[in-house]
Amino acid sequence: MSTATPAAAGTPVSVARSQPADHAAVRRHNLGLVLRLLRSGGPRSRAGIAVATGLNKATVSSLVAELESRGLVRDVGTDRERRLGRPATLVELDGRGVLAIGLEVNVDFLSVLVTDVAGREVHSRTRPIDARHHSLDAIVALLVELSEEGVSIAGPTRRAVTGCTVAVPGVVDVDAGVVRIAPNLGWHDVPFAAVLGAALGAELAVTVDNEANLAALAEHRVGQHAGVANLLYVIGEVGLGGGIVVDGHLVRGASGFGGEIGHMTMERDGLRCNCGSRGCWETLVALPAVLRAAVPDRADELAADENLSPEDKIRIVAERASSGDAVALAALRDVGEWLGVGLANLFHVLNPDIVVLAGIYPVVAEWVVPVATEVLAEQTLGHAGRSCPVVVSSLGFSAAARGGAIHAAERVFDDPLCVPVLSDQKEPS
Amino acid sequence: MSTATPAAAGTPVSVARSQPADHAAVRRHNLGLVLRLLRSGGPRSRAGIAVATGLNKATVSSLVAELESRGLVRDVGTDRERRLGRPATLVELDGRGVLAIGLEVNVDFLSVLVTDVAGREVHSRTRPIDARHHSLDAIVALLVELSEEGVSIAGPTRRAVTGCTVAVPGVVDVDAGVVRIAPNLGWHDVPFAAVLGAALGAELAVTVDNEANLAALAEHRVGQHAGVANLLYVIGEVGLGGGIVVDGHLVRGASGFGGEIGHMTMERDGLRCNCGSRGCWETLVALPAVLRAAVPDRADELAADENLSPEDKIRIVAERASSGDAVALAALRDVGEWLGVGLANLFHVLNPDIVVLAGIYPVVAEWVVPVATEVLAEQTLGHAGRSCPVVVSSLGFSAAARGGAIHAAERVFDDPLCVPVLSDQKEPS
Repeated sequence: MSTATPAAAGTPVSVARSQPADHAAVRRHNLGLVLRLLRSGGPRSRAGIAVATGLNKATVSSLVAELESRGLVRDVGTDRERRLGRPATLVELDGRGVLAIGLEVNVDFLSVLVTDVAGREVHSRTRPIDARHHSLDAIVALLVELSEEGVSIAGPTRRAVTGCTVAVPGVVDVDAGVVRIAPNLGWHDVPFAAVLGAALGAELAVTVDNEANLAALAEHRVGQHAGVANLLYVIGEVGLGGGIVVDGHLVRGASGFGGEIGHMTMERDGLRCNCGSRGCWETLVALPAVLRAAVPDRADELAADENLSPEDKIRIVAERASSGDAVALAALRDVGEWLGVGLANLFHVLNPDIVVLAGIYPVVAEWVVPVATEVLAEQTLGHAGRSCPVVVSSLGFSAAARGGAIHAAERVFDDPLCVPVLSDQKEPS
Repeated sequence: MSTATPAAAGTPVSVARSQPADHAAVRRHNLGLVLRLLRSGGPRSRAGIAVATGLNKATVSSLVAELESRGLVRDVGTDRERRLGRPATLVELDGRGVLAIGLEVNVDFLSVLVTDVAGREVHSRTRPIDARHHSLDAIVALLVELSEEGVSIAGPTRRAVTGCTVAVPGVVDVDAGVVRIAPNLGWHDVPFAAVLGAALGAELAVTVDNEANLAALAEHRVGQHAGVANLLYVIGEVGLGGGIVVDGHLVRGASGFGGEIGHMTMERDGLRCNCGSRGCWETLVALPAVLRAAVPDRADELAADENLSPEDKIRIVAERASSGDAVALAALRDVGEWLGVGLANLFHVLNPDIVVLAGIYPVVAEWVVPVATEVLAEQTLGHAGRSCPVVVSSLGFSAAARGGAIHAAERVFDDPLCVPVLSDQKEPS
């Protein structure tokens, strides 16, 4: 399994790499450089920062002062390892007062997860909801309530919120802040970043992204297999979504359709998909297909029941399989095979280090994963798919909201100047 | 169409971004920084370099002296735009004496393309060969001959060769320098970088990569659509290969199987593929499938004829289609459809800005491209595939060798110290 390159810890700004940069951009870059160094390497003296970054000591002192004035770093103790000269004061990543908000809008729940800049969770909550029966305004009002509750729980230490990133089950143009298509919410071309931003307060940076992308980001940063360079995240619920990490970076593509793997055609004459095409991967392996094949006697009833979550419904399938029901077992074998075929296709495109399955799959993993793993190996060139483990997600429901908070916090590392100066401090010269 | 981010101009080394770096690594990084700046932005004064990079002037002077001592930059004229103070000397990217070699091994030809560090072509040659009837040693000997000829043609100005990157039609573990599988050459686990490196001379850095990857790199850097962030390169010959650029970087995956798109399963009960699976994309759209369907009366004879290149063979199909032959026209329509279905699948994974078709497809473009374009739009979520033009390559046969030279030259920008000091110069202090 290949490991992440240094760049995987965050996209380098590389202001001065291939195009000219002005002084302000260089300073911003260097502030981020110092902050990332402290995040990944722990506390360090100013002299140690200078050695590690190649910046001169006067510059480092000025950068540290700037970061300190914004509550992002603080002095802690002295370096006891130091044997010669006077002991040096160590600087560490602080940022406890600077919060990042991750939100998720899903068909049957809303979630919030708040962390500080160092990634420490300070609050999380999931609230059941039937999003299809709520207006956009009602959903926005609930999200504002959840966010404000989350931030207020952080209490008096809170002094800035760096941003809010919200996950939605749909295709998102991240740069434009627009949800292009979210079929299960009935949204088309919704300028969600602007709408939510206005409701949350104009000063807050709001980003919208696809739920699977943000969940993949969370898997890549804090999941059980964090740090692998190439990760494929596959989530099955009513639909089938994907999040792709290549060389440590999320693949969104030109306009947000990257990772919409549920709509790969697997059978040109297959079943009609919600998207209008035939034989999409999701018509074979997402929840409706599993219910139809595994519990044919209850499939219609379950599909219509809005009080049960996808996980409640797949648990019924798991119970039948556990009891040895031949129909359920055959259906899960089919699902495992089709999962394997699709994963083999993706292996030939992306060659991931690992595949992480989420949503309904962890519940039926014992029947589905071994079959998918076998087919993935069989159907790949030279059986190379053997090298790619298929595992289930350990992050559960909070994955997308956690990815949102990680994404929102990242803004501080890209531009530490987005955090205001502490009120009792002067802007350093 | 999205444009490339700054990082697209070359992978940042980011030595100091997320992990500590030693002084030598920082200096190497900064030397590369200056060199890239001069490549992308043209001549600049030392003071201008300091401003653009954020490095101090003393450091810049020392870096420029180091680069000068290696023939990578040179002083040219003075800055006439400057109004105050004494005129500043401008520094420009030189490197005319430092060569990069791109090679290609294909089933029916070997190619060499030599450039200098600034990308100026100094030599190129293609030599027909039937690689299947040559031993590995014989192929290596021919490649050495081609390389030496290419370098000697550069004449007395040549003083260093930065490296050699060789393209092969197969799955390559680039880090290990091993060709894992090259079915059409009959190679398995060939340590080609080591073998070729030993033959070329131990001091030369030799890299092996997949032909479609290197061709995609060339398309991304110097092709007609150079600079788009996300490019999908699809080449059809005896097999079907792909090269993927995401956010300006090649996608090789964990072990070199990235871009092996010809082995995506399109029909689980389809034709047997050379790889052992059934219904791979290449069984539907690569040359053998086209010949079988379009010229059934001559398919066996053409498949067996080793004196004709894939391009010679596809031209026979194009001639029939031009003359209105219904069988050929129907076959090409089918090929266009299957190309479109596969491209739609890849659109849902990668969402490229553009698809570039190469190999046999440019020859039959007028029949195949409109159909593929139509199906790509039809089969994508919200017809989003409409935003992705399908075009044919303008680089032709030399694409992979050119990509090899680009890759080999890149080494100088990553580590300018790989170029030796000029013999009449002292190592700068």
